[in-house]
Amino acid sequence: MRCISSSEPGYDVTSPDAVYNFAAGPGMMPHEVLLQVREELLDGQRSGMSVMEMPFAGEAFQAIQQQAQQDLRELLGVPADYRILFLQGGASAQFALLPMNLLPAGAKADYLDTGHWSRKAIAEGGRYVRINVAASGEAHGYRRIPAQTDWRLDPEAGYCHITSNETADGLAYHWLPNTGMVPLVADMTSDFLSRPLAVERFGVIYAGAQKNIGPAGLTIIIIRDDLLRRARPETPSVFNYRVQAESNGRVNTPLTHAIYIAGLVFRWLKRQGGLSAMAERNRRKSARLYDAIDGSGFYACHPRAMDRSPMNACFHLADDALTGKFLQSASAQGLLNLQGHPATGGVRASLYNAMPEAGVDALIAFMQAFALRHA
Amino acid sequence: MRCISSSEPGYDVTSPDAVYNFAAGPGMMPHEVLLQVREELLDGQRSGMSVMEMPFAGEAFQAIQQQAQQDLRELLGVPADYRILFLQGGASAQFALLPMNLLPAGAKADYLDTGHWSRKAIAEGGRYVRINVAASGEAHGYRRIPAQTDWRLDPEAGYCHITSNETADGLAYHWLPNTGMVPLVADMTSDFLSRPLAVERFGVIYAGAQKNIGPAGLTIIIIRDDLLRRARPETPSVFNYRVQAESNGRVNTPLTHAIYIAGLVFRWLKRQGGLSAMAERNRRKSARLYDAIDGSGFYACHPRAMDRSPMNACFHLADDALTGKFLQSASAQGLLNLQGHPATGGVRASLYNAMPEAGVDALIAFMQAFALRHA
Repeated sequence: MRCISSSEPGYDVTSPDAVYNFAAGPGMMPHEVLLQVREELLDGQRSGMSVMEMPFAGEAFQAIQQQAQQDLRELLGVPADYRILFLQGGASAQFALLPMNLLPAGAKADYLDTGHWSRKAIAEGGRYVRINVAASGEAHGYRRIPAQTDWRLDPEAGYCHITSNETADGLAYHWLPNTGMVPLVADMTSDFLSRPLAVERFGVIYAGAQKNIGPAGLTIIIIRDDLLRRARPETPSVFNYRVQAESNGRVNTPLTHAIYIAGLVFRWLKRQGGLSAMAERNRRKSARLYDAIDGSGFYACHPRAMDRSPMNACFHLADDALTGKFLQSASAQGLLNLQGHPATGGVRASLYNAMPEAGVDALIAFMQAFALRHA
Repeated sequence: MRCISSSEPGYDVTSPDAVYNFAAGPGMMPHEVLLQVREELLDGQRSGMSVMEMPFAGEAFQAIQQQAQQDLRELLGVPADYRILFLQGGASAQFALLPMNLLPAGAKADYLDTGHWSRKAIAEGGRYVRINVAASGEAHGYRRIPAQTDWRLDPEAGYCHITSNETADGLAYHWLPNTGMVPLVADMTSDFLSRPLAVERFGVIYAGAQKNIGPAGLTIIIIRDDLLRRARPETPSVFNYRVQAESNGRVNTPLTHAIYIAGLVFRWLKRQGGLSAMAERNRRKSARLYDAIDGSGFYACHPRAMDRSPMNACFHLADDALTGKFLQSASAQGLLNLQGHPATGGVRASLYNAMPEAGVDALIAFMQAFALRHA
């Protein structure tokens, strides 16, 4: 069911096994990007080598990395006083490395508790800093993002941490918090590059790549220059933001092949019209799916409408006993990996940038047919 | 110059630009493995997805990861009381994470200084433990591996760290140190899987993937069970050996695509006859090259014969002024990335598992012709 361009020379990839992959992460990649990776797999940039085989300090790979950085900077409009780092370990590593890089032991930080992944950030971050949970959605069963008027910020906090999109709970911020002089820090793993972003409103943005960027492992840090010099002495050098920024990522061998693929994704995004165009497409996709859910009487969405995630639509069947059958039937029709996060259950359809509108339409058609059959 | 099987269906990869890649890392990958990665890039394991797109906790990827672990265990003969971890960050990250995982602050450890990479391990490790340099090759200009009779081990050391192959200096251990009850710890990044290994003689073995295993970033840890429970409280959870071992690598999203490719390499190694066969082939390759160097009167090897690395042949031209021309001419003939490490200069030919004997023969033929022209 992948959309194959018939003008693609030399490849027959139309297979009855092709699928729409709604996995939350690693998730679906743009088909054009995978085609290009395949095309260049034995000969990247006419080097006679796979990009995987290129020495990372050599000209060929350095050019790839610089281009990827520059394209990302353009896409997001990253201001000149921010650095872009390509690190490793995913967002979960940053749950520890971020406080190690930003604050001394015993310092305080604000964290917003909006669901599964902010709880993870709080649990790990709490081993490094004294955390003030400025507001929590727990009392409301994580149905909404607490309004900023309800936040109790600690005047001594060294930063304020949010999770811009809750992958497991299906919630997202549709507004930007204002934390004054206190640096706003965001885990954007699951909505990075899904919409335009006012980078200058943040101190640090971090994101694992495996949703909207590229292969798992690659971890992007965007950090304001003045926050680079605060790392604790015990921070491992390869995870020290300043050391990495000053060496231009040469402290250790970077994730060369993943950076190359991320670079192809950045260029693909530019060809799609950039982040405004992606935001519009993502809005259409999720609106169509949420409308189908709300209008069904058969499916129901837990998060309140104004806080729903455009990336991860989390919903339940009114009759939960049918969930297993729903997932099985969907899978048999090539609509894969729709199971909810183990912590929340139900159904989750991840609609990252690479998911075409046709995939959402196929899902909605399946949902309507399933509802008719089991109503 | 890659060896292309003409029976390979549907692909024409014979290109005048194809090359032998002597890079020290990331280095050459087995051609068969790259062909398989390409073949499966849009449809891994008949899933309709690229392996890159598979959710890491799903059955399909978990099967890939388990198979890779099992194949590695068989290849190396890893005993049952050792765990295999697939982490991230490369060996340079382990320079810090290893002492964090093994010893409390202020504890002591022995390190052997045999060249560029052990100096790196010592510089970073020294931020976490009190290091006793048990022996150093520095006084002899890193021409040899100090014999164990010359080591001064600290009776209070918590472990003893060696670098089994010095990638930049062209040195390797051709014998196993005996450190009694003190765990022997080895950075094997550049000779892992190049020969059989008595794993039971080590407490911890670690290796970055980008030489003999797979794509850069993937980091393999093999650790004896009794060493798993010593991590400092400030060790980030995703880099805590015990936490990773107990969660079977599910603490954070692993490097799924790199693990898949490493698994293909392990199977390729089995098809080659396993590590004994690789060791024999690697011995032939390096012996042929070192013989050509020693017999030339035009090229010279710095390390003494008995300590030379089978993986990284480091040599100089007797007339150093010709080095630039040598590298340029080699490159023009498709013999790429032969420049020595910036710290040592000269020429370096990396002869990892994936380098075919024909590549070494092509290099030797070029060297002889170059010597004739410039003698």
